Amino acid sequence: MERMKNLAYYNGKITAIEDMMIPANDRGFYFGDGIYEVAMVFNGKIFALEDHLDRMESSAALVRIDLPAPKEEIGKLLVELIEKVDSPHQFLYWQITRGTSPRNHLFPDAKAVASNLYVYSKPWKGVEISDEYRLLSVEDTRFLHCNIKTLNLLPNVMAAQKAKEAGCNEAIFVRDGYVTEGSHSNISIIKNGMFITHPLDHLILPGTEQKHMLRYCEELGIPVEERAFTLEEMAKADEIIVSSTSHPSMRAMELDGEDVGMKNPEIVAKLREKYMQEIGM
Amino acid sequence: MERMKNLAYYNGKITAIEDMMIPANDRGFYFGDGIYEVAMVFNGKIFALEDHLDRMESSAALVRIDLPAPKEEIGKLLVELIEKVDSPHQFLYWQITRGTSPRNHLFPDAKAVASNLYVYSKPWKGVEISDEYRLLSVEDTRFLHCNIKTLNLLPNVMAAQKAKEAGCNEAIFVRDGYVTEGSHSNISIIKNGMFITHPLDHLILPGTEQKHMLRYCEELGIPVEERAFTLEEMAKADEIIVSSTSHPSMRAMELDGEDVGMKNPEIVAKLREKYMQEIGM
Repeated sequence: MERMKNLAYYNGKITAIEDMMIPANDRGFYFGDGIYEVAMVFNGKIFALEDHLDRMESSAALVRIDLPAPKEEIGKLLVELIEKVDSPHQFLYWQITRGTSPRNHLFPDAKAVASNLYVYSKPWKGVEISDEYRLLSVEDTRFLHCNIKTLNLLPNVMAAQKAKEAGCNEAIFVRDGYVTEGSHSNISIIKNGMFITHPLDHLILPGTEQKHMLRYCEELGIPVEERAFTLEEMAKADEIIVSSTSHPSMRAMELDGEDVGMKNPEIVAKLREKYMQEIGM
Repeated sequence: MERMKNLAYYNGKITAIEDMMIPANDRGFYFGDGIYEVAMVFNGKIFALEDHLDRMESSAALVRIDLPAPKEEIGKLLVELIEKVDSPHQFLYWQITRGTSPRNHLFPDAKAVASNLYVYSKPWKGVEISDEYRLLSVEDTRFLHCNIKTLNLLPNVMAAQKAKEAGCNEAIFVRDGYVTEGSHSNISIIKNGMFITHPLDHLILPGTEQKHMLRYCEELGIPVEERAFTLEEMAKADEIIVSSTSHPSMRAMELDGEDVGMKNPEIVAKLREKYMQEIGM
């Protein structure tokens, strides 16, 4: 089989990512009316696929989008698609929108209009790790549905760009004084040997890496607190960990121009070791 | 010239709306990273085009999207496009997204990637008026950038659908007890001869019809208050007016299942008369 440099899939059609065309009437294009997932492929295997399929199902249910196929079938399709790409490590993205129909806020008739599945996968360099993350705090002015992984990402785009322009790697959302999450990551801290991370509610995305780290902590006997913490508490933490699917455990060394964290490398090393074991690398 | 039943335009290409294809890498499709406008065409003329071009410019600036052309040129293009459609009255939509590039929260290089202009126009039946609007109040959980006309419309979609399923025509967002706006309209009330509407801030869209009605009030000598009002105050108002570009002055007769408004038809009639004069119908 001739393998592809990268791949896009849309409702059965396959092309290179840059060649994929979709109808302008896809509700994703004019309403952001859809949900998405990102998963990593390491050594030809989709890491934590079940977690991502579960969250996809949950996101879709919360915005009342019917999946275009049972989640097991979507999982099988994703496995087939990544096998067509000529790279052991891949960044795999998929989104489901509420179908193609003339613009109207009201849902289209679900009997007549099926949801659309768009997938792409591209080569990835392998596990990304950094001990040099710089963070910029920004006000969290997003909607109160951050637990749903929707395509309404303009505030996240604006925050990420603002952070970059300040010489930073990630923007940290702060709502009423409390850290919620990053523009495309979860934020956890370590203080006095305790792993502290925001509880699951409507203010943050239930991160798959966040979930894994909580399990690693349990397995390693590291005590955990699931509670919100303030920006001040974060600034005084021993470690600040920025986690996402594509960037599983980035250590922050700077927050709003001040030195932070970097005081408990041992715990971070243990968590990273667990991750590498899990992905088999 | 053979005229079209309806028309879509994307960066120079013209097709029927249902045939228009756009690249999956358009940032509108996966981030909702763009802004839009809707204007009505009556008797072959775009109503309030300058207002819509001004708001387009303002929305784009607020999310730091460069216009693909000066706004005067975009206006000229819109005029050319509606002339190709075989209908005196049209619903004209256009959106501008932050260009086509591989998915990345960070802005693409604006020197290398231009913004995308998508336009469509379709026949419209003429002025829509109703004295029988039913409203459903819903909690306003949207982001704090409602003054920008962005493509991040999922909460609006969910609210509009909820209203429809409750047998209503529009959902009314209520934040901290105060009415902000509808899912795709502004909300104003009349009480004791006074026209009351939400002030322009980050909680509502600066509606072009809202702006026009304020001017009509001035011309008619109707006193105006630009302030927020509670859901209770709205329920006791003499009139509730739901306004948008496509539905300029709808009178509500029901709110959350209770009879409301309909007590000052004279003022509503005067405002509607002004509107009809302006559009020349």
